[in-house]
Amino acid sequence: MKPIKVGLLGIGTVGSGTFNVLKRNQEEITRRAGRGIEIAMVADLNTERARELTHGEVEVVSDANLVVNNPEIDIVVELIGGYGIAKDLVLKAIANGKHVVTANKALLAIHGTEIFKAAQEKNVMVAFEAAVAGGIPIIKALREGLTANRIQWIAGIINGTTNFILSEMRDKGLDFDVALKEAQALGYAEADPTFDIEGIDAAHKVTLMASIAFGIPVQFDKAYVEGITKLQGIDIQYAEQLGYRIKLLGIARRTSMGIELRVHPTLIPAKRLIANVEGAMNAVVVHGDAVGATLYYGKGAGAEPTASAVIADLVDITRLATADPEHRVPHLAFQPDAMSDLPILPIAEVTSSYYLRLNVADRPGVLADVTRILADAGISIDAMLQKEPAEGETRTDIILLTHQTQEKNIDAAIARIEGLQTVTGGITRIRLEELN
Amino acid sequence: MKPIKVGLLGIGTVGSGTFNVLKRNQEEITRRAGRGIEIAMVADLNTERARELTHGEVEVVSDANLVVNNPEIDIVVELIGGYGIAKDLVLKAIANGKHVVTANKALLAIHGTEIFKAAQEKNVMVAFEAAVAGGIPIIKALREGLTANRIQWIAGIINGTTNFILSEMRDKGLDFDVALKEAQALGYAEADPTFDIEGIDAAHKVTLMASIAFGIPVQFDKAYVEGITKLQGIDIQYAEQLGYRIKLLGIARRTSMGIELRVHPTLIPAKRLIANVEGAMNAVVVHGDAVGATLYYGKGAGAEPTASAVIADLVDITRLATADPEHRVPHLAFQPDAMSDLPILPIAEVTSSYYLRLNVADRPGVLADVTRILADAGISIDAMLQKEPAEGETRTDIILLTHQTQEKNIDAAIARIEGLQTVTGGITRIRLEELN
Repeated sequence: MKPIKVGLLGIGTVGSGTFNVLKRNQEEITRRAGRGIEIAMVADLNTERARELTHGEVEVVSDANLVVNNPEIDIVVELIGGYGIAKDLVLKAIANGKHVVTANKALLAIHGTEIFKAAQEKNVMVAFEAAVAGGIPIIKALREGLTANRIQWIAGIINGTTNFILSEMRDKGLDFDVALKEAQALGYAEADPTFDIEGIDAAHKVTLMASIAFGIPVQFDKAYVEGITKLQGIDIQYAEQLGYRIKLLGIARRTSMGIELRVHPTLIPAKRLIANVEGAMNAVVVHGDAVGATLYYGKGAGAEPTASAVIADLVDITRLATADPEHRVPHLAFQPDAMSDLPILPIAEVTSSYYLRLNVADRPGVLADVTRILADAGISIDAMLQKEPAEGETRTDIILLTHQTQEKNIDAAIARIEGLQTVTGGITRIRLEELN
Repeated sequence: MKPIKVGLLGIGTVGSGTFNVLKRNQEEITRRAGRGIEIAMVADLNTERARELTHGEVEVVSDANLVVNNPEIDIVVELIGGYGIAKDLVLKAIANGKHVVTANKALLAIHGTEIFKAAQEKNVMVAFEAAVAGGIPIIKALREGLTANRIQWIAGIINGTTNFILSEMRDKGLDFDVALKEAQALGYAEADPTFDIEGIDAAHKVTLMASIAFGIPVQFDKAYVEGITKLQGIDIQYAEQLGYRIKLLGIARRTSMGIELRVHPTLIPAKRLIANVEGAMNAVVVHGDAVGATLYYGKGAGAEPTASAVIADLVDITRLATADPEHRVPHLAFQPDAMSDLPILPIAEVTSSYYLRLNVADRPGVLADVTRILADAGISIDAMLQKEPAEGETRTDIILLTHQTQEKNIDAAIARIEGLQTVTGGITRIRLEELN
């Protein structure tokens, strides 16, 4: 059987990783797929570099349209990124009847509905394992491995940059700014780290996972997104003293009222396996009603880990390309005519536990005032840490961990507490999830 | 489209779990599969109990042949266990053109080659996600999620009973016998726990994973199997002092000389994620050349976790049943005509690091004798722990951690050390893997 022909759009880090792994493991991959997988054409603006990276073995063009319009190409791999030209090219490839593999979470999180619809109409597959958690086969696990389950929640460390920064802050007692600079120097953070540190990248990924888990359309605009830029070292230390770690989690949870979809720094018990995922590593916990909690861990970025996911999609498509389109695996795990319209809840309706840090006057009655306000709001306290004032200081920190409540309740209570004369400045509030 | 019809052979724990989950999540599973999945017939010797468990909604028979010969049945789920009648029924179902789902690792580890060959000839699928690590989709990850990779090694905690016992021994300082009794009382170990505690169950599972990872035939008879029955609490404590945990691991590793396939208690660094997998939980680390290390964690047993895997296979088959047989996922991940004949190495040829515990006279020169023997054998020492003799004692324990060497070298060195007059009794030897 003649090899399936692949066209690569963009040959940067992931593109050259894909080229190299396909070449190095060609024999083994063919033994698995039953058919060769050949990169037949590469489009990149820097044609010279593209020719170098592919050792002159592949046709290189600067115009990506030549790839998506080439009738010889069976599968287009989009590794350009962003939503502009990448979107046009993906839609053109689909219109031309080509299957698409992409690592572009931003594109799918924002334009996924349009793209999957187009693919459905043309009976082609759009595969995106590489878009979430790099080399970890989490999309496959959610879409195929856990099909028996009513998924209850997902919580993932799905951005390596921020996990590296948080690990460094905790390990070395660094402040955010210092840890960020270190991450940049080591290549774990980009020169403009906004997408990572503001939680946007993680929100793209959890949006895609939520769709697959719950059978809902892709709705990035409804996600609540909070990054790690305001996180202080002192809170990481207090959390530790209380038995918790702080991680940037992407969380999607099914509730009776709708779906929670949110990214924010989160306290999690230090004894949970996911709390011990350090450095730039990724991990996702998926909780299903039958299977309970399962966890998937690995490298979430990098040339070859991401290439591993791209190539797994290529093999899947090679295997499934001849199958009846109605019996292939649905793009979003559920059949397109059987999607759910469960609403995404606004953050005010979300339920969580909370870590609160208050700076208060070291004076009798202060704690009573605070706990009274919480009790009035129906919020109960799970744990408390009160520090002795430093030598010569008259003020001190109080840390409270609350039981679960709705975000609007804690917002109201915080506003009242901030109104107390004995409380200085703003209250630091970090969400807390037990993940059990 | 009319539902796909499933016949269940045996309705014990996993069978009733499968029935219950399929029923409870029927709507969601159908939305995923695009077609209903219906248990149409159940065979069990205890027909009365089978009728109770299925609430009179399903035809119940005592003769399993009525299921495998029923032309209405599309998929047979074998949950009888063992290699006798289960094997006959699976082969009959295949001969009758039915797809098969089984949780029977013993059957596949021993008769897999024959069964997969029969399935290949009849163009039917044999799926066995439930045979390894319960609800964790590890077979799918290995067979489909990591197809880009040359798999280098797999190491798994794939027997919940022994992991529970080892966790209890470490946590509570229990001896093996006491921890086993506790596990039995809590339902984590069977009345006859031989298969679990002797490592046989884990060996069945790692044999299957090795086949899928390396594209080799199923060869349980070549696996090295050592259980946890001889493990002493003192070694768990010494290991801990040196920064290690002891786990029963199933290990499969590719080397230049062949494949290592082995189950035995293993020291692993306490900081590894898998070292922190406690109680009856399972976890598997897979190391691929492109992706690096990935880890999969979850419940390895129980009614609904195992049912989760059985049903995932049912959905896969429902999706793939209409596809061209040559383009389905191969049973053992590699195309049947592209299997490898890499040999499985005898344990003497295996490479490992070692933990050695010696009881020695507290006298000058003893350690020099021991280290001289190791040096002569080309074995270098990575760490050492020497305990002070207890009050009034003249003997003490020395613990050595070695660098990597072949098993036959350490065997020879141990024999020489045991010949020293200053060394009392046998030397305790436990393998050690860094898993990095």
